[in-house]
Formats: sequence, C-alpha cells, structure tokens
Amino acid sequence: MAESPSKRAGSPVLPLLSGADHDGAPLHARVYRQMREHILRGALRPGARLPSARMLAADLGVSRNTIEAAVTQLRAEGFVVRRVGSGTFVAAAVPDLVAPDRPGRRARARSGERGGRASAPPAPPPPPRLSSRGRSIAQLGATELEEEARANPCATDVRGFPVRTWNRLLARRARQVGAAALLPADPAGVPRLRQAIADHLRLTRGVRCDAAQVIVVNSTQQAVDLAARLLLEPGATALVEDPGYPSARAALAAAGASVRGVPVDRGGLVTDALPDEPGARLLYLTPSHQFPLGVTMALARRLAVLRWAAATGAWVLEDDYDSEFRYDGRPLASLQGLDPAGRTLYVGTFNKVLFPAIRLAYLVVPPALAADFIAARRVLDGFSPTLLQLSLADFITDGHFTAHLRQARQRYAARRDALVRGVAAEWGDAVRLGPSDTGLHLVAHLRAGVSDIHIARAAPAGGIGIAPLSRYYLHRKPSPGLLLTYGAATLEEIGASIRRLAPLVARERR
Amino acid sequence: MAESPSKRAGSPVLPLLSGADHDGAPLHARVYRQMREHILRGALRPGARLPSARMLAADLGVSRNTIEAAVTQLRAEGFVVRRVGSGTFVAAAVPDLVAPDRPGRRARARSGERGGRASAPPAPPPPPRLSSRGRSIAQLGATELEEEARANPCATDVRGFPVRTWNRLLARRARQVGAAALLPADPAGVPRLRQAIADHLRLTRGVRCDAAQVIVVNSTQQAVDLAARLLLEPGATALVEDPGYPSARAALAAAGASVRGVPVDRGGLVTDALPDEPGARLLYLTPSHQFPLGVTMALARRLAVLRWAAATGAWVLEDDYDSEFRYDGRPLASLQGLDPAGRTLYVGTFNKVLFPAIRLAYLVVPPALAADFIAARRVLDGFSPTLLQLSLADFITDGHFTAHLRQARQRYAARRDALVRGVAAEWGDAVRLGPSDTGLHLVAHLRAGVSDIHIARAAPAGGIGIAPLSRYYLHRKPSPGLLLTYGAATLEEIGASIRRLAPLVARERR
Repeated sequence: MAESPSKRAGSPVLPLLSGADHDGAPLHARVYRQMREHILRGALRPGARLPSARMLAADLGVSRNTIEAAVTQLRAEGFVVRRVGSGTFVAAAVPDLVAPDRPGRRARARSGERGGRASAPPAPPPPPRLSSRGRSIAQLGATELEEEARANPCATDVRGFPVRTWNRLLARRARQVGAAALLPADPAGVPRLRQAIADHLRLTRGVRCDAAQVIVVNSTQQAVDLAARLLLEPGATALVEDPGYPSARAALAAAGASVRGVPVDRGGLVTDALPDEPGARLLYLTPSHQFPLGVTMALARRLAVLRWAAATGAWVLEDDYDSEFRYDGRPLASLQGLDPAGRTLYVGTFNKVLFPAIRLAYLVVPPALAADFIAARRVLDGFSPTLLQLSLADFITDGHFTAHLRQARQRYAARRDALVRGVAAEWGDAVRLGPSDTGLHLVAHLRAGVSDIHIARAAPAGGIGIAPLSRYYLHRKPSPGLLLTYGAATLEEIGASIRRLAPLVARERR
Repeated sequence: MAESPSKRAGSPVLPLLSGADHDGAPLHARVYRQMREHILRGALRPGARLPSARMLAADLGVSRNTIEAAVTQLRAEGFVVRRVGSGTFVAAAVPDLVAPDRPGRRARARSGERGGRASAPPAPPPPPRLSSRGRSIAQLGATELEEEARANPCATDVRGFPVRTWNRLLARRARQVGAAALLPADPAGVPRLRQAIADHLRLTRGVRCDAAQVIVVNSTQQAVDLAARLLLEPGATALVEDPGYPSARAALAAAGASVRGVPVDRGGLVTDALPDEPGARLLYLTPSHQFPLGVTMALARRLAVLRWAAATGAWVLEDDYDSEFRYDGRPLASLQGLDPAGRTLYVGTFNKVLFPAIRLAYLVVPPALAADFIAARRVLDGFSPTLLQLSLADFITDGHFTAHLRQARQRYAARRDALVRGVAAEWGDAVRLGPSDTGLHLVAHLRAGVSDIHIARAAPAGGIGIAPLSRYYLHRKPSPGLLLTYGAATLEEIGASIRRLAPLVARERR
C-alpha cells in the first residue's frame, strides 16, 4: 500500500488547524479553508498530489461529499488542478507562496544584505504604519475628541425630542416614496429639504440665501472638511478661536490646515488680534454663542471680521451650532447676513438641535461657489440618506420643528435657571458664571491657579456634564473653569450634581 | 418743521429696497432688514438720527408697532442706540461700514498704490476662488463623476428590493429603540451591524476578520478617503487599475494622492507591470469583478499582488463592490483572505447590493490599524445614522439579506442572459462580449477605431445604461467598447435597448 501523500509531505494528516475556526460555516467550507491554509503555508507544495477524498475523509472524520465540496471550491479558485486518471494536484500556479516570514526575507534580499540568510530566523514583518498625516488625524480623534466625548456628554435632551411624531413622519415617507427614493440622489441634498433650510435660515437667522446655496451634509465636521479642502491649499493657515471647538479644529487640521488660535474675550473673538498680513486663508468662528465661553460677538467686531476678510481675501466660516436656543433677548442675526462681499460660509447642524444620530447638517455657500461645492460633495461622500432628508423636510415644513424648538427652549431655560441659581447658592464666590443667555452649556470660571482638570476628573458621573475649560485652549495660557453641560439633565439631576460638586469646588478654592 | 433726517441723509424715504424680499417673513422683520441694509450701505450714517417711528410708519405705509418692533431688533443687535429724550441714532459702533466696494479700496491702500484713489471707480471685489486643490476636487466631481452618473445610471434594481420588509424593520426599530438610539454612537458603527458584516464576510467572501476590524462608513468613496488619508502622505503615489473605477480614482486624488494606472488584461491587473521600486504606497483594485472590464483576477496574480505588497511595503485596498452577484460557478474568495501579512484592506458597500440611498458601506482593516481608523472616523465625519445601521443589522441577521441576494441573483441572471442572447442576435460580430459571470454590467468590445463615445452619445435614453469604455481609461490608449448596465432594466427594456442600438453599432462598424 502506497504511503499517504500527506505523510510524504511531512504532515501526517490535514488536521483542522484550530478550534477558533468553528464560526458557524458549513463543514465543507471549514475543510476548504483548512486545505487552502495548508497550501498557502507550504505544507502542500505546488505539484504535490492531494490525498484521495477517501483518505482525507477518513483522516478528518467527515464524509467524502464534504471533502469533494471543499476540493471543488479549491479547483474553482485555482489552488488545485485535476488530472483525469491520476488525481488532484496543488497547482503550479501557486509558485511562490505568500507566508508571514517572506516580507522580511524579500526586503533583505532586495537591500543587498547577504550575511546569515540561510541561518538567521526570518525577521517578523514590520508593524503596519500609518502615514505621518494619518497618525496626526488618528491622534486628534483618539485624544482630543474621545476625551471630549467622554467629558462633555451629549448636551441635547433626546428624551424631549418628539420621537413619536418623527417616527410617524419616517413611516409615512417610507410608505409614500417607493423605489424612487432608493435611487442615487442629488449630492447637494433633497430639494424640499434645501428649500426648508433656506427659508428657515432667512427668517430666523437673517442668512442671505436661497435653496441653491444650501448643501446638505452629514455633520459639522464634514462641512468643515469640505470647506477646508476646497478653499485651502494643504498647509495653509486656518484661524480658530482660542479657546475653541475641538471638533472643528481637528477637522481643519485633518484637511491639512495649519491651525492657529486667535484670542477670545468677553466681546467674542478679539478682532484686533487678527493677523494683518494676508497669510491666513480662513477664519472659523462661532459668533452667536462662542464655544466654549458662551459670549456673543458684538456688532462692531462682526463688522471688523468682515472688513478683515475683505481686505486679506480670507474666507469666514461661521458655525451657528446652537443659537436656536436663545433664552433672553432676541438672537443676533448671523454674520453671514451682514456680509455683502460673499466671503462668509455658514454652517449649521440638526445633530444638536434635534438629535445626534440623525446625522444631517448643512453648509450655505456664496452663490458663485455652490456648483463647485456640490461637485466636491459628490467626490467625497456622495450624498446623505434620502429617507432621513425627506422626513426632516416634512418635520420642518409641517411646523414640528418650530414647535419642538419652542418647547425645548422652555425646558432648557428652566434648566439653565436651576443651574444658575444652584451654583450661586452652593458654590458661592468660588466661581464666576459666564453668559448663559444661549445654548446648552455655560462656563463657571474658577480662580487662577485652581486645577479645573482635577475637579473634572474627580467629578462623579451622571447629571450635568463637566469638562475642564483649560482643555479647549490651543496656544494661550488656559484660564481655569468648568464647562457645565445642562441640556440633557433634569432639574433634580442638576441640583444633585451641583451639591455633589460643591465640596470639590470648595476644596480647590484659595 | 424740521427736515426729515432721512432726507438730510440724501435718501428721501426708507423704501422697501426690492420686491424679492417678500419671502413670507413678518412685516416687521422685513422692515428691520431694510433698515439694516440702509445702515450697512451708508444711507444712514453712524450718529445719524433715525426718523421718528411716526414718520417712518407714514413713509412705509405700515403701523407704528411694526416700526417699533423693527427698531427694537436693530437696538438688540447694536445697530442703533436710543438716547432718552432725543431719539434713536445709528450706533457709532458701526464705524467703517462693510460695503461691496471696500475690498478693492483697502487692497490698493495696503499695496501702497496711490494714484487716482479719489477719482477712480472702486474696483469690483475679486471673484471668489477655490484653492488649486479645491479646483481639482470640484473638477473631478463635475466632469468625471457627473458624466459617470448620467451615462451609467444606477445598476441596482431598486424595484426588486423588498421595500415593505425594510420599512417594517425600520418602523420596528424606530419604535423599540427609544431615546438611546438618538444619542451619539460609536464612530466604528453599531456593534450588531459590525458583527453581522464580519460574519457574512467570513462565510461568503473568505475575509479573515472579526467585528473589531469592521468600520461602518457611508460609502465606498468615504472608505477610500479614510484609507488614503490615513495610509498615504500627501503627494504619495496610489496605483489604480487602468481602465478603472472613476469614483475611487477621484477619491484618491481628492485625498492628495498622485494616481497612476496599472494595465488590466483578461487575467485582471497585470502584476508584471507593478513598479518594482517601493515608491507606490497603495494599490486599489477590484479583483473579484474588475471594474469596468468584468474580468476576475486569477489566483497566481492575486498571490503576486500580495508578494509585491509585502516586498515593497505597499497597502492593498480591495474593493469587492458587487461579487455578491455571481451567476456561473462559485465566487472566488477575497484577496484579503489570502493575505497573511495584514497589508490588505477590504471595502464593500450596501449602496449597490441593497439600494443607493441607504448610504452604508464598510471597511475591514488589519487588527493593528482598527483603533486608528476608528479614531479618524470620529474626526472626519462622526458616525453613520443609527436607525439605518440597526435596521440593516436586523435585515441581515433575520435572513432577509440572504433571501434578497438569492432572488436578486436570479433576476439579474435572467437579465444577463437576455442581454447576452440579444447582443449575439442583433449586433452580431460587430462586438465581442467581455465576461458576464458576475455583477450588474458587462462590456461589449468594439473594433479598434470605432468611436464608443459617438455611439454612447447617440444612444436613446431609457432601458439599459450605455457608457463608452474609453472614458474609464487613465493613461493607456483606450480600447473602444460599450459598458452595458443591465441590472435595473426589465427583459423587455433590455430587448428594446439592444434593437434600438443595433443600427448605431452597425453604422460604426468597419
């Protein structure tokens, strides 16, 4: 009786290599994978005859049908060939197998290094490496933004979102639209939604726009990415507020911008500190409700920003992320609406004002840029999901959006009041509160020398979100403070949070 | 009687500047905007007293209440100030107004040019300009991809998608999930969906992966963008198939890669033509079903690609866009599954296999890269809409995905058969058909010298999609052919299209 070919190849059997492979695949698929692995690892060499199906079946304890199904797959993929009358052989087309130890050997052979090739153990493959650009993008996400997401939980009160109404609109749209809404759509967004956004922005934010200038995107970050890649050469300088919004800073840096900070004081961005030379190509700012300080930019400074942009030829990227929630006085109209020169781009998002998982935001661009931005949106990510766009258009045009804003504004105002009163009562003069007339967070400024990072780390979880103000600074010496995110906390939670934090704040007092 | 201040300012009245402003805003808002415009344009100078509410009301033919509401808003925004007892004045804080003619003047003043400053008309503002990077991205979208979208309409038969089942799953998820699913989610994707994708790819595509390696994105383009930005330095060389997939080429170029083509023949990418020096950092390819030629890459070449990547340290980006639709024989397992060195990234999309407007795709990365890719996804676009992710996970794990694939495969196979038979009967030997065992399109090669662009332009709309093969070439001399996209056409439409095209094809025959 002839020796089994598998024994000749130095492998007594073709065992299932590991138990980890029991992943629900049919048995023949697992046998196929095991045999392929043996071929790729060289246990079965090119030209070697496979053991017969009968022998393999006996060795592996499976049926011959199973073996034959596996071998058929190997043949279909070119790993083995059948020669009628003499059996099945590992294909000669598998000439030089890819094995984990090869890269090192080949690299040494190419580099001309000769010594010890026969005896030295093969070098392990070099660890996969990102590009230096890639490392910096990943680092921005892993450090700044992950910490941000942890420290400053969602400010939006999703419990207050009218989810039943939303579901009803979703279901209605899903039924109505049929197959047409499954097809590829306009990269600029669904026309009804663009129109609804333009109408809303003109009426409530004084934005000068029509629907043709509105581009629907997934997020503020995507809007910033799009603007930076279209308006800036790689390496160009982009200015941001210092302290400022980490996600926008990260998106600008990830698009290759060299990011520089401009100080912010109680009147908003310090326009006298804008660089006079025409080196900076873009200024990102939050004039309605500066993030994180919460101040509103005064009119004279708004006009100064526009004069600066016109004089230096820079672009202005206005992020109006939460000015819908204004509790005292009237909201100031947008910076974009003051700009006759068409150098201002306006960004807004539904991810904060409705709920984060909707993933819909928008960019309003000057008319002359609209076609180019839409073309670029096509290249970079196609378009946003049609069903969500249509349902949101209904939500706005049927009046649910305005009703939701009105109710949410009342709820948030009550929470803001509770927070302001509670801090005054419990924390006393250890802190000074920043503006609280808008938005879903406010800043409690601490005395110089107090460690906001220490307080934030020691803060118990739950209730209001606590983030140290110092981490929002870019170049400037940080001023200590606590960013208190109250939008999603109930009145009881707010009260409890303030009381729990009081000893920590007091201990850090000097 | 004192002269009206508005007359003193040289403007007899504050008229509504244009009828285009009747956009549904309340009257007081329109009056506010008009008055603001007059201030910004200098018709009302800083320090000038506003006409009294009574006079303005009479001039404009509106009530005094309307005027007072408008002036209150102007005061809130800092445009005007009230001095008790003497009236309302344009604020001195509006010192140097932004007007369309200022940029030119300021630019000249800064550049030191003196002559004719007083007399020359102000220069018009320079037209807005994209960066050169931005121009090339916009151009990629406007030319290549827009033409592609027109010429090669959606190949997916959305009429065959089980939209009722999908809507039922959507509605169920929407009801079940409550507020939690509205919150910010993992940038890598919903765990259930990542697991379902990993299981599916292991079983059907031979991909070596677990859920931790799967990153849910919106589109293949976003996956390519992410990979290129993380793995390539700006300006690094990326290799693509020539002819190849325009969207991937555009996404690579938009991410700053220098894109070079590698020829494709009947065995797929010509691996002998891969550059030997380690300059190229990434190879994008479609080994299962080459786009556009439709050929399948043979095993020996797959292994050669992996050897090349290991030797040069380049990354391989495998796009497996439509191999779910294999009609004859068994599908070949993925290239990724053959790669023990972990240099292969695998991209797939639901936008083709289900429906384009779902906007969900995925990237499978080597384990060592997963954390960095997830962090970068957070920076660049956050995450994909949770509701769609959860519904898709249900669609897969409840078995609807497999059932849909099976039914769609039968439908597409019948259409493929009709197309192949019809072309043989009607077009005869004017064309040679490329492979048709997989996917939703095939190529009818034309004789050298025939203009595929001419035929495609003259082709009547409707029925199958017609695109000239020559437009998919990058550097190589194009070989003429017609890309026939049959997935979304009925058997009758396919027959009619072939008959309508027959005279065009025959006329171009030589």
